[in-house]
Amino acid sequence: MPALDLTADIVSLTAALVDIPSESLDEQVIADAVEAALRELPHLEVVRDGHTIVARTSLGRPERIVIAGHLDTVPANGNLPSRLEGGVLHGLGTCDMKGGVAIALQMAATVPEPVRDVTYVFYDGEEIAAEFNGLGRLARERPELLAGDFAILMEPSNAGVEAGCQGTMRADIRTTGERAHTARAWMGSNAIHALAPVLDGLNAYVPRMVEIDGLTYREGLNAVAIRGGVSGNVVPDEAVVTVNYRFAPDRSEEQAHQHLQETFEGFGLTITDSAPGALPGLSHPAAAAFVEAVGGEVNPKFGWTDVAQFTLLGVPAVNYGPGDPTFAHKADEHVPVEHLHRVRDRLEKWLTT
Amino acid sequence: MPALDLTADIVSLTAALVDIPSESLDEQVIADAVEAALRELPHLEVVRDGHTIVARTSLGRPERIVIAGHLDTVPANGNLPSRLEGGVLHGLGTCDMKGGVAIALQMAATVPEPVRDVTYVFYDGEEIAAEFNGLGRLARERPELLAGDFAILMEPSNAGVEAGCQGTMRADIRTTGERAHTARAWMGSNAIHALAPVLDGLNAYVPRMVEIDGLTYREGLNAVAIRGGVSGNVVPDEAVVTVNYRFAPDRSEEQAHQHLQETFEGFGLTITDSAPGALPGLSHPAAAAFVEAVGGEVNPKFGWTDVAQFTLLGVPAVNYGPGDPTFAHKADEHVPVEHLHRVRDRLEKWLTT
Repeated sequence: MPALDLTADIVSLTAALVDIPSESLDEQVIADAVEAALRELPHLEVVRDGHTIVARTSLGRPERIVIAGHLDTVPANGNLPSRLEGGVLHGLGTCDMKGGVAIALQMAATVPEPVRDVTYVFYDGEEIAAEFNGLGRLARERPELLAGDFAILMEPSNAGVEAGCQGTMRADIRTTGERAHTARAWMGSNAIHALAPVLDGLNAYVPRMVEIDGLTYREGLNAVAIRGGVSGNVVPDEAVVTVNYRFAPDRSEEQAHQHLQETFEGFGLTITDSAPGALPGLSHPAAAAFVEAVGGEVNPKFGWTDVAQFTLLGVPAVNYGPGDPTFAHKADEHVPVEHLHRVRDRLEKWLTT
Repeated sequence: MPALDLTADIVSLTAALVDIPSESLDEQVIADAVEAALRELPHLEVVRDGHTIVARTSLGRPERIVIAGHLDTVPANGNLPSRLEGGVLHGLGTCDMKGGVAIALQMAATVPEPVRDVTYVFYDGEEIAAEFNGLGRLARERPELLAGDFAILMEPSNAGVEAGCQGTMRADIRTTGERAHTARAWMGSNAIHALAPVLDGLNAYVPRMVEIDGLTYREGLNAVAIRGGVSGNVVPDEAVVTVNYRFAPDRSEEQAHQHLQETFEGFGLTITDSAPGALPGLSHPAAAAFVEAVGGEVNPKFGWTDVAQFTLLGVPAVNYGPGDPTFAHKADEHVPVEHLHRVRDRLEKWLTT
């Protein structure tokens, strides 16, 4: 088992984590290494659940915060091992999100008496289907481990605070018709042609812009798949367009569903996938204090992240981590060394003053 | 090898042919049986090419006609062997088109001195891709075997004459866009949304009705397939709709292509498949004489059939056979006994008077 030196400089620690491959469902080695390193620290209580490790201070502080990051990555794409070049650390997971995990681990080791009690969570199965998500598993089965006044998810956010996240919902819109030979098409009814008003509606759709806690969320409604057809000489009797609705966190999943039903009134609509948004929660004192401490501009998060898991537990949460998220899942994934230092230093300052 | 009695009553002969399975690419047994039966007849010259059999009279008549039918069927669908019930013969190929083949074989055997010279053609590979079509093979490689003044293709036509056939053309209409994460859809361009005007155009399209030789052809333009989509959270950068244009035989393939280009101006259009129509040719004396002899209403043929092969060789051709074509390729395929007798008797009368 590789041994992790949590007190090494933050770039070396990130590189060490990157160089332990940990594709989703294959997190045992990295989870063992993280658990072993944390168990060395007498000021932390360590709990393991599957390949998810929870480590907590218990100093009796009036507030408790949660700092979380996932240990898994998408599959490698010729981008291992890590490589440091010109102030940038390259490699799988540098951005999403072993840089953030390294910073959290370093805080766990080097800040034994934080001014707020801290629960560190290092979890598995984030990059694949929701059922494998270790944070979701804890939220369902051991929510007491995630209790807190405020949570920081160290997903890449360009070393700035991204607050809340939009919800996402996928729906199939289905048209039906009647089959006929295309040589006698007038005897049938073409389900693909019947999709025209759905596509017209998507083109005419004006997404909402919503301001919440001073942040502007921009919604979106997009076709992500379309299919239909029986054979080259048959008028098709079924066609389906799948839409993805990204909705601002002032709307519940139920309201989002209702909005889709109104938008596509008269068409068969089936929800196939859904996850709620998360309100930015910046009005909470702990969140406001955090934003003030780390400084910089706060932006809304458009993509869906695990902050929504905390929202469902009633814990305000933000994304704050090193790396540009647009490089996540790319072969040229990387993290600027400057991001690693900046996020590390500001988090340390917030935990100690 | 099963022996065929070509002089048996027409229902028994049809049943005997049906009871020799002959799915496309598996026509050897039936072709052997047909060849052996025809070689017994001293008034015919028999030529075999693969599993296609040609048999000709050579009486020095001023006109020569071609009577053709395919020996193959689509795959069985629990509809073998044949079954005679209430004046209807049921089973695979009864309609498409062993009833017609039986009548042609009976004419070959029982009309040794027809008033017009006759070339009988029994061919393979009609129900699958065009490259396997035995009639097409002869047209390419031995067109002299198909020479004639007029041709009758004994495809099911409800025991009436169906003249000409429409052309068919398939084209892919492609839209392109730019990928983006659906959470930031405004950074991309949705190729599925861009298909809207194509579907609107199909809904607004008014097919031509064309009168030729007194027959009204009704064209059609239909989407037969639609596809697009990258993944559930990506704005797709490509979408394709496949259309099938059925065009009246007064239009060439080139004119049909041009019509599609005009209809979908501004979109990328690729022809993927095309076959020309066939003019009814009813003004030709041999065709007119045939129509008068067999009587009944003449209808246009909407579907594409091998009559177009004859048209390409300059031989006017019609469909004339027993059975309702809408039951072709169905599990409950069947042919009315009355159709078999009617077509047999009228063809015999035309060949002998």
